[in-house]
Amino acid sequence: MEELQDNIQFQVTDELLEQVGQHIVSQDDKALKLLLSDFHYADVAEILDELDFEEAIYIIKLLDSETTSDIITELDEDVREKILENLSTKEIAEEIEELDTDDAADIIAELPESRQEAVISQIENEEHKAEIQELLAYDEDTAGGLMAKELVKVYGTWTVAGCLRRIRGQAKDVSRVHSIYVVSKEEKLIGRLSLKDLITAKSEEKISDIAKDNVDFVNVKDNAEDVAKIMAKYDLEAIPVVDDEQTLLGRITIDDIVDVLKEEADKDYQLAAGITQDVEADDSILELTRARLPWLFLGLVGGIGAYVIMHFFESGLAEEFKVLFLFAPLIAAMAGNVGVQSSAIIVQGLANDDVKGSINNRLIKEMLLAALNGVVLSVFLFVFVALFKSDTLFALAISISLIAVIIVAGLVGTFIPLFLHKRGIDPAIATGPFITTSNDIFGIIIYLMISKMILGI
Amino acid sequence: MEELQDNIQFQVTDELLEQVGQHIVSQDDKALKLLLSDFHYADVAEILDELDFEEAIYIIKLLDSETTSDIITELDEDVREKILENLSTKEIAEEIEELDTDDAADIIAELPESRQEAVISQIENEEHKAEIQELLAYDEDTAGGLMAKELVKVYGTWTVAGCLRRIRGQAKDVSRVHSIYVVSKEEKLIGRLSLKDLITAKSEEKISDIAKDNVDFVNVKDNAEDVAKIMAKYDLEAIPVVDDEQTLLGRITIDDIVDVLKEEADKDYQLAAGITQDVEADDSILELTRARLPWLFLGLVGGIGAYVIMHFFESGLAEEFKVLFLFAPLIAAMAGNVGVQSSAIIVQGLANDDVKGSINNRLIKEMLLAALNGVVLSVFLFVFVALFKSDTLFALAISISLIAVIIVAGLVGTFIPLFLHKRGIDPAIATGPFITTSNDIFGIIIYLMISKMILGI
Repeated sequence: MEELQDNIQFQVTDELLEQVGQHIVSQDDKALKLLLSDFHYADVAEILDELDFEEAIYIIKLLDSETTSDIITELDEDVREKILENLSTKEIAEEIEELDTDDAADIIAELPESRQEAVISQIENEEHKAEIQELLAYDEDTAGGLMAKELVKVYGTWTVAGCLRRIRGQAKDVSRVHSIYVVSKEEKLIGRLSLKDLITAKSEEKISDIAKDNVDFVNVKDNAEDVAKIMAKYDLEAIPVVDDEQTLLGRITIDDIVDVLKEEADKDYQLAAGITQDVEADDSILELTRARLPWLFLGLVGGIGAYVIMHFFESGLAEEFKVLFLFAPLIAAMAGNVGVQSSAIIVQGLANDDVKGSINNRLIKEMLLAALNGVVLSVFLFVFVALFKSDTLFALAISISLIAVIIVAGLVGTFIPLFLHKRGIDPAIATGPFITTSNDIFGIIIYLMISKMILGI
Repeated sequence: MEELQDNIQFQVTDELLEQVGQHIVSQDDKALKLLLSDFHYADVAEILDELDFEEAIYIIKLLDSETTSDIITELDEDVREKILENLSTKEIAEEIEELDTDDAADIIAELPESRQEAVISQIENEEHKAEIQELLAYDEDTAGGLMAKELVKVYGTWTVAGCLRRIRGQAKDVSRVHSIYVVSKEEKLIGRLSLKDLITAKSEEKISDIAKDNVDFVNVKDNAEDVAKIMAKYDLEAIPVVDDEQTLLGRITIDDIVDVLKEEADKDYQLAAGITQDVEADDSILELTRARLPWLFLGLVGGIGAYVIMHFFESGLAEEFKVLFLFAPLIAAMAGNVGVQSSAIIVQGLANDDVKGSINNRLIKEMLLAALNGVVLSVFLFVFVALFKSDTLFALAISISLIAVIIVAGLVGTFIPLFLHKRGIDPAIATGPFITTSNDIFGIIIYLMISKMILGI
């Protein structure tokens, strides 16, 4: 056999891209096929993502559809879109023919509606076609949108020997057998067993006697994210999907769940940074602007609000006190930082189902935490201002208002995500610019009011 | 069989906790066992996380070690630590006896060093003990730290029939058979096959003839995060681990990878929010303070810096221009927001291996993007200031400096994570407070300088 290659080492290098490009220019198809055959299809997809579009199309048309169908599922979404635009509906149908039903339905769902029908009608395998059409009917955010129709199913009345015989037939269509699902004659899920159970059992035993009946499952209408969470929690590699009557409809495998968890984490991360719409570093400037500008605009409006507040405080403020305004950026920054910290802890806790107990207890805890942090920071600020400006009362005013600002910012940062979550709104929008901006404004108002009071202006 | 329960529905309710508590008070062990037997061990762990500590210990001592060992692996780390403190080394060794080698090694590694030896010495199964000791020697951030010794291994020279016979023996110790690994007589990994391949093959065929030789694998010293990435990329459910001589040492399964990916995403999210040390919403106020205060302190020092800068600009500034300072919070907020956005995009791109090409190209792209966003926002700010203050030159000064501030903030936010990544430092620390604070200061300096220039002060 060939020399084995550690998979960690794959990198799309400039040399590799150039080598591929040269084979294409010289139309040396044999060398190109040989070169690419060394790589995993996910790696070939990475190569195609980096190639010029014409070169990518050349390779897709060169390789057979068994290989290219896998490559296509792994491409960047925008590259895939462009490639599919350049394939005929017949060619796409051939790719679809090779894919598992879940991947097939995902690809078809990405096509413009006008082409979807044409592609489906050209799928030759009637069973595959019907299954894909069934999957297309489910919302992509549900268990139905994640599941595949490929699974291995046996009846409780069969014997181990009969079961093994029939599985040999079914398993050919199923790339990975995780569990064998046991159904009643009405097709209702009644248990499961592993291939291991089967090959370690005696051949005359009845399936219903060796099957485990504590089978985990989800409903086809369950939320995709919830499904991902329980598969991660129970360490499941596959889970069967049933309808309200317990009829076995399909199964979801862990590789799809890894993608769901990853997308969810990426989305929350982006929202915390003030970015919407699931963009990537390689997207166009226009796409990135669409994702970023609205949040910046929110920040701008907040900054204008802060200015207007200070403007109205200014009139009637004696000259000697106007130095208060020079600390406004400090106060706003602290309010923003504390708010982001406390909201992030809550958002992450909610995502991991770690946040239990009453809202009141959370708020009390956050208040104590913020007070502790606030006192430590204020002592430092007091010492600095007292020394720098040699004015103890002034230092006291700023430090005490900083404590108040930090406590309020912590409470706002804790309350808003909890409140949104209770109302069924994704709390992740309440991190980042949203919380920073509102805390900037609250912070500056509290700061100026308390300082005025202490200084007796 | 019992009524099947949709797994999505499990919740630790107050009623459930009370019911458990009552059974403990009345020492009704039979009812308690019956109640808990309905739940998945991961759910029982959630119940224990919420119970009083004495109640949790009561349940752990009540149930048999086959059940409790699984529960213990799923507990919150701090609850587990307290429970293990209350078990004798003999009792812990009994739990360890039931666990797969990877979980067993993880639990032992969490114990105080003084107890580790005592627990290991009381493991009765000598093979299990030796394997756990081997695993304890690997760094937890490497493939060796993730892998388990449990796997199914066959020799290339065996026949399918002989193989099936021997696998029946090996598979009893392996909870899930993903792949069967084929080794040479020197124990070097030479291929793999699935159980499916085996049961669909003819019984007289030779293993080396039906095994796939393009087996993916990782080296025992590879970084855990890299392993997680390639398993996710290649949709692998298990990957074999070898040493430098290609000797098969163990295998890593996808459930461990899901945890690694999740921890990594959580860590990056927290860093972006200014939180270190992997804390949770339910941690103590002191732990949360340790994780949050240092970042707030950084923000405070930045705020003081901003004050000092404005203080020095102030002297010599005519009264009419001091209104410039009232826009400082706006400028700082915009600089902070843009910096966080651009750094988050880069950090996420680096985490997903999406960031390719030269640093210069990235910077040029970010400059164009920031300029576009800056112009749109500045036009709005210009209109507001011109109307509110009826001073076009002043409005122009502020708007133009805003564009400059946004561009610089975008460049800083792009450059710093790329620079840290090149130096081998985790770029995730460069999001959140770090970038906000530095951009606050840069922003205010640029703003005041450009405004002074335009206003001709």
